[in-house]
Amino acid sequence: MSVKTILWTGKVVRLIDQTRLPKKLVYIDCCEVEPLWWAIKELKVRGAPALGIAAAFAVLLGVKKFKGDDTQQFRSYILKLCDYIATSRPTAVNLFNALNQMRGLVLKNPKCSVPVLKAVLESEALAIYEEDRAVCRAMGRHGARLIKNGGTYMTVCNAGALATADYGTALGVFYAAKDVRKKFSVFSLETRPLLQGARLTTWELLRNKIDVTLICDNMAATVMKNRKIDAIFTGADRIASNGDAANKIGTYMLAVLAKHHGVPFYVVAPKTTFDLNIKSGVQIPIEERAADEVRHFHGTQTAPQGVKVFNPAFDVTPATLITGIVTEYGLIQKPYCRTINRILSIGSS
Amino acid sequence: MSVKTILWTGKVVRLIDQTRLPKKLVYIDCCEVEPLWWAIKELKVRGAPALGIAAAFAVLLGVKKFKGDDTQQFRSYILKLCDYIATSRPTAVNLFNALNQMRGLVLKNPKCSVPVLKAVLESEALAIYEEDRAVCRAMGRHGARLIKNGGTYMTVCNAGALATADYGTALGVFYAAKDVRKKFSVFSLETRPLLQGARLTTWELLRNKIDVTLICDNMAATVMKNRKIDAIFTGADRIASNGDAANKIGTYMLAVLAKHHGVPFYVVAPKTTFDLNIKSGVQIPIEERAADEVRHFHGTQTAPQGVKVFNPAFDVTPATLITGIVTEYGLIQKPYCRTINRILSIGSS
Repeated sequence: MSVKTILWTGKVVRLIDQTRLPKKLVYIDCCEVEPLWWAIKELKVRGAPALGIAAAFAVLLGVKKFKGDDTQQFRSYILKLCDYIATSRPTAVNLFNALNQMRGLVLKNPKCSVPVLKAVLESEALAIYEEDRAVCRAMGRHGARLIKNGGTYMTVCNAGALATADYGTALGVFYAAKDVRKKFSVFSLETRPLLQGARLTTWELLRNKIDVTLICDNMAATVMKNRKIDAIFTGADRIASNGDAANKIGTYMLAVLAKHHGVPFYVVAPKTTFDLNIKSGVQIPIEERAADEVRHFHGTQTAPQGVKVFNPAFDVTPATLITGIVTEYGLIQKPYCRTINRILSIGSS
Repeated sequence: MSVKTILWTGKVVRLIDQTRLPKKLVYIDCCEVEPLWWAIKELKVRGAPALGIAAAFAVLLGVKKFKGDDTQQFRSYILKLCDYIATSRPTAVNLFNALNQMRGLVLKNPKCSVPVLKAVLESEALAIYEEDRAVCRAMGRHGARLIKNGGTYMTVCNAGALATADYGTALGVFYAAKDVRKKFSVFSLETRPLLQGARLTTWELLRNKIDVTLICDNMAATVMKNRKIDAIFTGADRIASNGDAANKIGTYMLAVLAKHHGVPFYVVAPKTTFDLNIKSGVQIPIEERAADEVRHFHGTQTAPQGVKVFNPAFDVTPATLITGIVTEYGLIQKPYCRTINRILSIGSS
């Protein structure tokens, strides 16, 4: 992938303003935590893995800003900063995981001098970034085995390079399959209300010369009925211990439709997306976003001003509807309670 | 309903420009056939029953325009005109049924003078209009029995007053239930790409003080999973002899989701929507509309310019997924091959 979704220059966090795509590829530099918090909130940067990286880099902006050499003051400042960054968006666990890693370093090193702790934090944030790149490639390799030559696939939202530091999760599977010269085509659901599929996924796939067809979300069922869809690949924002997976709104719909039409349904997600603190999907907090995202589009009113709106940004797909989860350690399948534990213990060994 | 979606003034066809809703309630007068053909094509007037009326009224515009007293010339002119009007949109059978009624009068009356034939055609078009009003009320009465006090329902696209000469089909059920003082709430799917649900259905339901919540199409599954939906009501554009029903894209998706969640799924459609010439849904021609409807929204580009698009305007719900069809003669259920025949023979007896 030739785009760098997010990077740390040593002074600023540079990221693609994804709300401007596909019309313009615009990079913005965040020199302070506050504008980066807003960039996360307003989806200028989005995608579960990228949110983890953005959160870690946000801590680095705080690190740079802190002047002084009082370790206790610095530690307390960083911990408060982590709490503040955590308020930006509630669903993707990667964001909290990255912040917990940064917090952990502060808590584990009460005696470190400020300069040393600063260096440790910077190196941790960069490790989160580099790890994401390696993990994307590994998931891609494992997932590419599920892609067959001449096949037709479907995806929702954007689980691609724009959602990560590198290849993407679900789209990484397509990129890896293309790298080994498989030919196939992809239906991309536009993903209302913010159209990440229309704006971002088709943009990425076209740039990478993958055959892509855009459809509205309500067309997925008729496509599954009338054309052969070989499998569906989606990302995830958080996966519970039992395998229930929260992802962009519309994913659960796709999983139910896939079951009805006998289409395999795969989630592609790294270890950092699993949350063993929760037993099942009902415990995953689902972000509800502003009504005007549905009532308006790019400043154009599309519904009566006062009409009530329900606008959940995510839904939860029960593990029973998931054929398999592609992780950096390979494909895992039911019973997820066991296979998830095994994968996570490999990771921490 | 206080809005008049379409009417014949004696000289012009007056209709609401539905592409301007919900922002502006604008009426347009069509004095010639050509602008009315375009109004149909461009969805200024839409909805299966309203399309039947619009087609009949389009013939009247031709009737008014014809000068002369040569019966053969007049007959040939009207038959050609019917062929032309039939090219406006392919899926809703009501349009063809109305034109066939007009054609039938011309064919049955080879000897009539031009003034008499003109009067006969005008009276037939007005009868189609009046019939639709009576039929809407009858469907509403039958359907309202399926609405329970305190219930929650779901609908897609606009099968309301704006789609007919009066009450609507699916929304007519809600209006009739409200007339008998039932209280209930409705989820309206926005219905991409042209947002008839967001723009028209919520506008109608708000005007009629019915509790409505707007959702994106990809949120229907999560709403069915997390809240109790008592039933789904949709319209239809054409119903085959076996009960397979073509309707706005997204209807088939809803039917599959309804089955998965154990929600009853009802189609509300008058006799004129049934097409006994076709055995099953695979024979219903499905209109594919322009790619830019999906790539753009109200002039705003929402996807890369060159991306391929699949944009079917309708889908077909197999009879097996339909709990019942509410007609002006009552609710019919499986086996549809038998019940549809019975209903249609009542109608023609």
